[in-house]
Amino acid sequence: MADPLPRLAILAGGGTLPARIAAAVRGQGREVFVVAFEGHTDPATVEGVPHLWSRFGAAGTIIQRLHDERVGEVVFAGPVRRPSFTELLPDWRTTRFLARVGTRALGDDGLLRAVVRELEEEGFRVVGLHELLGDLLTRPGPVGRLLPDAEAQRDIERAAQVARTLGAMDVGQGAVVQQGIVLAVEAVEGTDAMLDRCAALRRPGPGGVLVKVRKPQQDRRIDLPTMGVTTVENAARAGLRGIAVEAGGSLLVDRAAVAEAADRLGLFVVGIAVGGEAGSEAGRGFPGGQAAERPA
Amino acid sequence: MADPLPRLAILAGGGTLPARIAAAVRGQGREVFVVAFEGHTDPATVEGVPHLWSRFGAAGTIIQRLHDERVGEVVFAGPVRRPSFTELLPDWRTTRFLARVGTRALGDDGLLRAVVRELEEEGFRVVGLHELLGDLLTRPGPVGRLLPDAEAQRDIERAAQVARTLGAMDVGQGAVVQQGIVLAVEAVEGTDAMLDRCAALRRPGPGGVLVKVRKPQQDRRIDLPTMGVTTVENAARAGLRGIAVEAGGSLLVDRAAVAEAADRLGLFVVGIAVGGEAGSEAGRGFPGGQAAERPA
Repeated sequence: MADPLPRLAILAGGGTLPARIAAAVRGQGREVFVVAFEGHTDPATVEGVPHLWSRFGAAGTIIQRLHDERVGEVVFAGPVRRPSFTELLPDWRTTRFLARVGTRALGDDGLLRAVVRELEEEGFRVVGLHELLGDLLTRPGPVGRLLPDAEAQRDIERAAQVARTLGAMDVGQGAVVQQGIVLAVEAVEGTDAMLDRCAALRRPGPGGVLVKVRKPQQDRRIDLPTMGVTTVENAARAGLRGIAVEAGGSLLVDRAAVAEAADRLGLFVVGIAVGGEAGSEAGRGFPGGQAAERPA
Repeated sequence: MADPLPRLAILAGGGTLPARIAAAVRGQGREVFVVAFEGHTDPATVEGVPHLWSRFGAAGTIIQRLHDERVGEVVFAGPVRRPSFTELLPDWRTTRFLARVGTRALGDDGLLRAVVRELEEEGFRVVGLHELLGDLLTRPGPVGRLLPDAEAQRDIERAAQVARTLGAMDVGQGAVVQQGIVLAVEAVEGTDAMLDRCAALRRPGPGGVLVKVRKPQQDRRIDLPTMGVTTVENAARAGLRGIAVEAGGSLLVDRAAVAEAADRLGLFVVGIAVGGEAGSEAGRGFPGGQAAERPA
């Protein structure tokens, strides 16, 4: 007889994704435990679910509790914006941890990778959302009815190249291109804030495209680019014609609702193949011709 | 007896730089003719100077007038934001020109390079601002009293690497880094708009730095990154600790006023050496160790 799946802890970032994950995993008959972060996690996430509210800095308390709760696997869900210094104020274990990794991790990625290593040394298995719910991972091809035309396809290729290059430098995951011109590139402000400013930057004529790709060196278990209905709505408000996200390298939250919003607002949403695999060398450069393939 | 210097046409972008150039060149006893662009050039620029107001699209009219005015040399001065389609509505000559270079020049740089080639084929010599006024070019070292400390120096190196990489892709010239985190990268919104959003993105602790570098493939005769007092004031408002601009690859408008503003607001302003020369291969990558050297 196979062992039952070990208890899963969800380290819950912002948005509705953590609650969706909790519900889906419990629906599979599996026990979950949610770690919620003050000021980041939506309180609705923990309703009716065993949980702990914590500061980011209280790593010692969190890890002890995960042991006490007999957690076997840990998953990161939802965007984790870089916490403030107060939120990071360390307990004794976190102090030791920060002393080891250095407080000056370059980019969000460096810090998250260090957290993953720490959890693994404590005996937890860190899994990716896509391992729990395979249908969350963006598939190649269109999500709604619409497809990019040839000009949008060229914009997608250029935006993918820029986003990939920035990602390789651990800067951000997104870029907006209109008619060959890079309107905006994403750093810590996030995709929604980037889209906000595009409304004022757009040129007459065919609208631009948003492309989000995984950082090439990024562990798929942490912070994959995510899109949902809000992204589609914000892109429409910014005057864009569509969105392309990396197939196999991004999460699509509620595919049916995204397709409905895309069709209703007249945008295309496509999953694109982006060159390079998870293990590819960071910053190796990105051949333009592989940036995006026409969705099937 | 040496020939007198030929008449100089100033293609005037925005800001106060074109008027400064006109005054300085006339102060050298040289005749100037200003081409002003509706909606872009400050009207004060043309006061008391022979000039033509024009649309960008009227290249045929402009070139004919430059011949009629016996212009020998042409200089670009002041930022030229990508014009709208209406402004670009071509006359017959511009139509021919656009048909040749393609309407889809990637980035501002491609279009400007094509304009330079066109002017040269018409027999004009296109010169750089730094050839006219050598002291405009940023020199290595501090402009005011203050210098970056070791942490600011590391932020400068990272920002220079990011800005240089983006520049190689013809995206933008600037980036803001605080404590190793890339707060913002510049695309078409321009430096001032990028600085605006940094106020909300900044973290507690030591402030960030703004770095502006020349696009590595960029012709020094067009659109060098420029900084002046406004840049210093906006950087201070955004909570930054200082500014680093590429020595020999950027223009410092009114050095004395910049030094005064930097000292008054408590920011450092330094010229930094950035790896790679004008002829270096675009997109070749940028070795981090050469990103910035400690100013002397």
